[in-house]
Amino acid sequence: MQALYLQSGQLAFRHDYPQPTPAPGEALIRVRLAGICTTDLEIVKGYVPDFQGVLGHEFVGEVIASSHEASSNEGAPDVAWHGRRVVGGISLGCGVCPVCVGHGPEHCPQRRVLGIIQKDGVFADFVTLPLSNLAEVPSDVSDEAAVFAEPLAAALRIREQVTLRPSARVAVVGPGRLGLLVGQVLALAGTAVTMLGRSPYSLELPAQLGLTTGLADDFADNSFDLVVETTGNEAGFAQALRLVRPLGTLILKSTYAGDARLNLTKLVVGEITVVGSRCGPFAPALRLLAQNAVNVSAMIEAEYSLAEGLKAMAHAARPGVRKVLLRP
Amino acid sequence: MQALYLQSGQLAFRHDYPQPTPAPGEALIRVRLAGICTTDLEIVKGYVPDFQGVLGHEFVGEVIASSHEASSNEGAPDVAWHGRRVVGGISLGCGVCPVCVGHGPEHCPQRRVLGIIQKDGVFADFVTLPLSNLAEVPSDVSDEAAVFAEPLAAALRIREQVTLRPSARVAVVGPGRLGLLVGQVLALAGTAVTMLGRSPYSLELPAQLGLTTGLADDFADNSFDLVVETTGNEAGFAQALRLVRPLGTLILKSTYAGDARLNLTKLVVGEITVVGSRCGPFAPALRLLAQNAVNVSAMIEAEYSLAEGLKAMAHAARPGVRKVLLRP
Repeated sequence: MQALYLQSGQLAFRHDYPQPTPAPGEALIRVRLAGICTTDLEIVKGYVPDFQGVLGHEFVGEVIASSHEASSNEGAPDVAWHGRRVVGGISLGCGVCPVCVGHGPEHCPQRRVLGIIQKDGVFADFVTLPLSNLAEVPSDVSDEAAVFAEPLAAALRIREQVTLRPSARVAVVGPGRLGLLVGQVLALAGTAVTMLGRSPYSLELPAQLGLTTGLADDFADNSFDLVVETTGNEAGFAQALRLVRPLGTLILKSTYAGDARLNLTKLVVGEITVVGSRCGPFAPALRLLAQNAVNVSAMIEAEYSLAEGLKAMAHAARPGVRKVLLRP
Repeated sequence: MQALYLQSGQLAFRHDYPQPTPAPGEALIRVRLAGICTTDLEIVKGYVPDFQGVLGHEFVGEVIASSHEASSNEGAPDVAWHGRRVVGGISLGCGVCPVCVGHGPEHCPQRRVLGIIQKDGVFADFVTLPLSNLAEVPSDVSDEAAVFAEPLAAALRIREQVTLRPSARVAVVGPGRLGLLVGQVLALAGTAVTMLGRSPYSLELPAQLGLTTGLADDFADNSFDLVVETTGNEAGFAQALRLVRPLGTLILKSTYAGDARLNLTKLVVGEITVVGSRCGPFAPALRLLAQNAVNVSAMIEAEYSLAEGLKAMAHAARPGVRKVLLRP
């Protein structure tokens, strides 16, 4: 099959990559559409030094084969899923440890992660995933919308972690691909959300999406009750910490590659709460997409065939670029 | 009066410092006993670059004069407080801003802080404080115990910020003066608290206080549900973040001077909650001292006269030293 394969920091398009075989309890999924995330770009740059395999974790696909859990009816097909259009959670846990049982696979110490840790991803014709990771896409949600389910779920994760008062003053630092989903999700409770960027150009798309925008430097210290940092760089962190008020909450929605030089004085003296935030729930994300409550169509920059994957990755890496899609 | 006075990074003993005059709503307090905190040592090293004045914020004293609030009966003495033994909150807010009205003076943007920001401290014969900052010391609490009220309140602040499950696995990184109070306070709910240090020597006092101890390096990653970082240095932060489990809580109880080089990857990926923690409630601290629920007598290293203050500060700065007291 076709695949974008990463090995020793080199990403290559292969047309002869072996098609995966679903294990018991897994589905074989034909990828219909995939999205390029900043994490994919970071992985190629070496953010996950030991990853080798097919890249990609944002997708919508169709189940074409599956089998029951080994414990129930080994090897027999689970036809209920066949032909269904699905999106899926990216973490594959051991399923038996206290973390998996109590919380789910996201924090399993033995977890594999789709296209990130020891598990081939979705920039390919086919991918396998546990049936328990799948969520069916409603018929009224297009592939072009469903492919946003994973990052939209990640944005919704914030709502599962902290109380968001509708009257809170909220800012999102970084008006990029993830920031735009975060901003839209947080605004859904009637909350005043300001998308903050460093240049007027970066604020054009958020304004087009109906979000309030501003240049981060124009705001005084302590201007917001809750700030979401989506840039993953030191300057973004410093800006976010400056803008959150004492006793306020700072959400870190993007990883920081390597060490960062940070001043934490305000965090302690201002008694700020900082919350790391990663993967979120798919079913609510699909419901929002079905309701057209989040505008994702305006966030699509371009679509490439999988064979043009390297060109697509280069496009996605340009500053200020929206979502780039890959169609196998 | 006598005072330890800091100017341009130079600490000096003065016997001719002017005695302060209480403003309306303030008490004039004769300092009976004061404690040296790591913050005092940091301020002399330049942590608060623009502080000039009398150092010190941990004290027990006796009210010798006071007057009503300007708004009620200006200038008339408030004799109810006269002769009372008191401890007191260190933050002086404007009293009228939304932060002061809604939360208290601790996060007022205009606040002064006793011996730290624009307000003469307690390493002196006399000090003034707003009556609203004062808490009376019960008669069965000695001066040598009451002088711990401020750091004990700071330890209790954690209990006001996060839910501490009695069954949680808790660690305190840094078995120093503040860490020992934190460890004792957190153990009061039957919680298993491990005091972590870098050397066997550093664990002698926590063991003597009945606390479980361990060398931090001996514990695997993710060993604790809640970790309190009390060292204020990069290595302590890194150790604390390593030891807290995914979805766990990390409390930062000590400020970090200047920039710190930190790796926040686990904070985001592990969805850790980090909570800055500073000043706490005095009344509960005094109740615990009255109940002898916290052992502070074993934490006293030495007592000096105020005239020997420079010697006392040098003593307090030695590694592994317990609380050094100053008696005017």
